[in-house]
Amino acid sequence: MMMKNRAMTMSKRNNSLKEIADVLWNAESVLLYPHVNMDGDCLGSAVALCAALRKIGKEAYVLIEDEIAAFLRFMEKDYCTEELQIIKEPDVCICIDCGEPERFKYRKDKFFQGKTTICIDHHLTTEPFADLNYIDPKAAATGEIIYELLNGMRIVIDKEIGEALYAAIATDTGNFQYSNTTKNTHEIVAGLFDCGIDHNKVSIQLYQNIRAEKILLQNRTLQTLKLFAQGQAAICCTTKAMLEETGGKMEETEGFIEVLRSISGVEVAVFVKEVTDTTSKISMRSKEKVNVAEISKEFHGGGHMRAAGCTLNMGTSEAMETMIDTIERFLKG
Amino acid sequence: MMMKNRAMTMSKRNNSLKEIADVLWNAESVLLYPHVNMDGDCLGSAVALCAALRKIGKEAYVLIEDEIAAFLRFMEKDYCTEELQIIKEPDVCICIDCGEPERFKYRKDKFFQGKTTICIDHHLTTEPFADLNYIDPKAAATGEIIYELLNGMRIVIDKEIGEALYAAIATDTGNFQYSNTTKNTHEIVAGLFDCGIDHNKVSIQLYQNIRAEKILLQNRTLQTLKLFAQGQAAICCTTKAMLEETGGKMEETEGFIEVLRSISGVEVAVFVKEVTDTTSKISMRSKEKVNVAEISKEFHGGGHMRAAGCTLNMGTSEAMETMIDTIERFLKG
Repeated sequence: MMMKNRAMTMSKRNNSLKEIADVLWNAESVLLYPHVNMDGDCLGSAVALCAALRKIGKEAYVLIEDEIAAFLRFMEKDYCTEELQIIKEPDVCICIDCGEPERFKYRKDKFFQGKTTICIDHHLTTEPFADLNYIDPKAAATGEIIYELLNGMRIVIDKEIGEALYAAIATDTGNFQYSNTTKNTHEIVAGLFDCGIDHNKVSIQLYQNIRAEKILLQNRTLQTLKLFAQGQAAICCTTKAMLEETGGKMEETEGFIEVLRSISGVEVAVFVKEVTDTTSKISMRSKEKVNVAEISKEFHGGGHMRAAGCTLNMGTSEAMETMIDTIERFLKG
Repeated sequence: MMMKNRAMTMSKRNNSLKEIADVLWNAESVLLYPHVNMDGDCLGSAVALCAALRKIGKEAYVLIEDEIAAFLRFMEKDYCTEELQIIKEPDVCICIDCGEPERFKYRKDKFFQGKTTICIDHHLTTEPFADLNYIDPKAAATGEIIYELLNGMRIVIDKEIGEALYAAIATDTGNFQYSNTTKNTHEIVAGLFDCGIDHNKVSIQLYQNIRAEKILLQNRTLQTLKLFAQGQAAICCTTKAMLEETGGKMEETEGFIEVLRSISGVEVAVFVKEVTDTTSKISMRSKEKVNVAEISKEFHGGGHMRAAGCTLNMGTSEAMETMIDTIERFLKG
């Protein structure tokens, strides 16, 4: 029933999960492609499907091209490899949680060598590019689609597969907080509890696995916190000097902006990142009302209502001042 | 079915939810008692039950004795009052999420004036003290019990009641992360989605409603962060001077210790709070292995495996050194 309802919401260009299941049952070897900058959903979904395919006797690997972040490494095991030739002539290549080949750039040629190519994703994309495509933007996580696929294939979801799917769904829904979370999300997770998952152990891996240097960097960054526009907006910045001082990495600043948005009364949060002495990257988030994409447009940036960004050709101090001025003007108008 | 299964796990001294439902149906006026230091579960559960009782024509109020924290205030509406005489002779007094009368001290006399007293809770208690008691330690939150009670009473859970129950369950499970979360938790939340709840709006209220001063205090506190025992332990402290400096309150330090525990490799997190120049309160948390109650015993403290505390008769600097020495010794042994 679940699959039927789901299928009715699909775009016409979508294949059915049944068609994908049939291809997988008939394959002998399968390569799975998570996108670069792997997050919990793409890696968890890929590992879950890989483990499931091995359970039914397929040769299956998750082909990666970048490092697995510490908080996701518990899923790696012997599933993930950077070895392009791990399967010489794969019957099936599936990209997971990824709607454009540019997001698996260094593995792209190998992908299209698959006798059949498949794309399973929940991001809205411009043009399906694989032989079979299943894109469901209503799914909170690709992990939800994999759960339905495995149920449709009647593969028993064991503890290991279940924990990978839990990681996929928990991370992509901000632990069930984000608006993408649905009734179906909670029903699927309820189903995963039946598979014997230890959700608390997975949560510890995901959320209690932060490098001390990142904490120090966040702390140093928050020392630059400024509230403005009568407390309706907050801004802070990370400079390269702070990275040296704390041992943190620039990519570890992801999520800092959420601390700003979490402040009571703050509607717009702004985070400034030093790229060079004369280039700063700006991220913006809003809580409930302001369309930050409108603000980013003033600087030829892009984004959505609640999350947008742009680049300014100036150092961080000047960039902070510019953003404060712009946003104060915007919130008055 | 759910209620039946649940009932079988109950202690023999428990009444059934059916008995409680009957008393409520027959009552004209009901006073509800959350515990002091109200958290999301006690307030959310009380407000949900209060709103439901009003829906079926009862006179009902949530009687409180302390201030509602900002992040919970969205539930207050006209349900909550400190006015002891709001109902002169209540038919029923129910304490919610609270197993001992000392936790509603200033309302205790009024509670026992109820013609019938009821206790609904999920904490293990020593001795039931009300006329009717329903204590289910397997429930992740009292909100889960109220959900089942309302379903049993066939009261339709509307958006408002549903959002209060969601707040109750989400906060007491650490957003579904803690080990108390069960399959039933997710099934109940799936059910709440059918009531039209806006879980994202509730999450914004709960988690994006932090006083800026608290962020500043946390930041100042984390400047004292020390890793020790080869990175297996972390410690930090909040002093009264830091409160003055940042405008933060001592009660806002709750949760700071979680930042320490979230560091990769840290098994024991320690937080030191200045009480006076010569008194420090110590909190400890462990991640997966160490029994911190054992450590707190050395200083005549108490607690559980993963959360314990004690008081040291010394200032914060000396207290930090003492804890570092003790824990280094303990982790070696």
